[in-house]
Amino acid sequence: MVRISIDAMGGDHGPEVTLRGLTKVIERRPDARFLIYGREDTVLPVLDGLPVLRDVSEFTHCEVAVRMDDKPSQALRQGRWKSSMWKAIEAVKNGEADACVSAGNTGALMAMSKFCLRTMADIERPAIAAIWPTMRSESIVLDVGATIGADAQQLVDYAILGAAMANALFDLDRPTVGLLNVGVEEIKGQEEVKEAGRMLREAALNTMRYEGFVEGDDIGKGTVDVVVSEGFAGNIALKTAEGTARQIAGYLREAMSRTLMARIGYLFARGAFQRLGEKMDVRKVNGGVFLGLNGIVVKSHGGADAEGFAAAVELGYEMARSHLLDRTRATLDLYHARKPQVAAGAAAVNE
Amino acid sequence: MVRISIDAMGGDHGPEVTLRGLTKVIERRPDARFLIYGREDTVLPVLDGLPVLRDVSEFTHCEVAVRMDDKPSQALRQGRWKSSMWKAIEAVKNGEADACVSAGNTGALMAMSKFCLRTMADIERPAIAAIWPTMRSESIVLDVGATIGADAQQLVDYAILGAAMANALFDLDRPTVGLLNVGVEEIKGQEEVKEAGRMLREAALNTMRYEGFVEGDDIGKGTVDVVVSEGFAGNIALKTAEGTARQIAGYLREAMSRTLMARIGYLFARGAFQRLGEKMDVRKVNGGVFLGLNGIVVKSHGGADAEGFAAAVELGYEMARSHLLDRTRATLDLYHARKPQVAAGAAAVNE
Repeated sequence: MVRISIDAMGGDHGPEVTLRGLTKVIERRPDARFLIYGREDTVLPVLDGLPVLRDVSEFTHCEVAVRMDDKPSQALRQGRWKSSMWKAIEAVKNGEADACVSAGNTGALMAMSKFCLRTMADIERPAIAAIWPTMRSESIVLDVGATIGADAQQLVDYAILGAAMANALFDLDRPTVGLLNVGVEEIKGQEEVKEAGRMLREAALNTMRYEGFVEGDDIGKGTVDVVVSEGFAGNIALKTAEGTARQIAGYLREAMSRTLMARIGYLFARGAFQRLGEKMDVRKVNGGVFLGLNGIVVKSHGGADAEGFAAAVELGYEMARSHLLDRTRATLDLYHARKPQVAAGAAAVNE
Repeated sequence: MVRISIDAMGGDHGPEVTLRGLTKVIERRPDARFLIYGREDTVLPVLDGLPVLRDVSEFTHCEVAVRMDDKPSQALRQGRWKSSMWKAIEAVKNGEADACVSAGNTGALMAMSKFCLRTMADIERPAIAAIWPTMRSESIVLDVGATIGADAQQLVDYAILGAAMANALFDLDRPTVGLLNVGVEEIKGQEEVKEAGRMLREAALNTMRYEGFVEGDDIGKGTVDVVVSEGFAGNIALKTAEGTARQIAGYLREAMSRTLMARIGYLFARGAFQRLGEKMDVRKVNGGVFLGLNGIVVKSHGGADAEGFAAAVELGYEMARSHLLDRTRATLDLYHARKPQVAAGAAAVNE
């Protein structure tokens, strides 16, 4: 049994979409149980219409719902202790839930998660990890927007967090890890990225294979299982890829509807287009995972439909089931136990 | 007549491709004239087989060719004064050519261009600008990798350089300009980006319309004509978009060849796929433009074929013909003449 706490009020569409997403999860993961938080006047009418969901859920009324445009500080002030978002996170803290999922606003969810769950020992800053479909399979990219900038140590921490997630989610013993960098010869990357590369190479952790620098086009190729970046460039990479995919889908639609021949061709190839559509379906990879906290929190896209929200919930489910946090802690302990030694080794090399 | 100096030795394929690219340019731009630099034993056999090109070109033998894997410092040391790359740039400096095009290595080309042409007055650092196909038409994105990091003043300079290029190339009186940023609420971007936004708003230049921050997915939408970023994030955005486009093209090819029905559909819709292919053809937008120097230098993709190299040459042609440098200087003079005033205004606002 995996227990997931749900902020039913988050997202652009509210309970109507989040709860119907949960019914899809039950079909595919019959051992999922839900703790649902939200306003009773909005949630209960929907929940009562979904008896299968009601049977595996526990509902708690919360007076306050964080709005999509609340600033994080405002959300914390007004929503702490009592909003559906807070309550869902708190259920993870109290051990009542194994993971929390919200489609609410990212800034508020991150602020509350940090405040309530705190970062893991040895981790200074949490990161947001995205699952990125590649030509090979799927990769994990982090940080895609939790913080701007990162020093070398934080990039190394992100590598450890991302590798633990790849291990838990893709069942890889030693996922490959790359640092996102630029390839132009004369500049060859930020100092922090270069330093993080040195540190990862010297640490030689047995929970990952550090492969060196990767460039923007390596992400889609699937060159490595985990791509590590500070949050500014990571966010821009993610959004740019989403924009490019939408742009090409637009071109394709236009091209296929322009002439009679194209429309006939489309009819014949409809199956192929459907498969292509599935490959490009961002709903399937919906869910930004907050890593580095003492608990699993998944952020669903605010505009996600029921299928998209279900994907985010299933992501939380899989990570809880595969004991992501235990794996992360084990690697962190290993790395930090060895660190003085590593630093001494580095000093010797530099001498 | 527009005179373009060509480093015939650059690129993965050398004169065979660069010279055949030039013949395509002549067909479309009959008033183009070329100054071709390279080793006579490699260039002349090809040039002699292309009499139409030979008639509008002047060839100069250069003993040295910069290699694709030379480090910038190495290229400068070995290739200054005498390599085909240097000679092509120097022709612009001497006023013999209106623009220079090379498919050689980016770092070396930038180092030599800076050394030979120097940056324009008031410009601290050059930028590399890329033309980005959008759902609306085309936009200019800079810096895509000349330098890592940029302070607020440098971002403002990039905005001025990019707007002048949009003005020259797309014939827009007041191109719209946006600063690339991340949208996540709690962090809202780097300090330098915020400061640059304030400066652009206060400067209220009549050569551009500053529209505020844009995110990664706005680039492909064509939200603004000019997207300004420091070089690290800009390079990662560009490479990520290229990677995503290739990835989707791969999905599409696979889907269309998988079943008999799909293959029949492809035959019917072949015209549509061709149009789509043209839309996605990166060769057409080949060419990174070095902005901020006392001369026009265009970097073609090293792997470009003849059509791709022709596109880069035509880009140089168009910018020379539309007097990009004069336009850029005019805006820079205007901005910097007004700057003390602007700064005083800003101080007044902040008080």
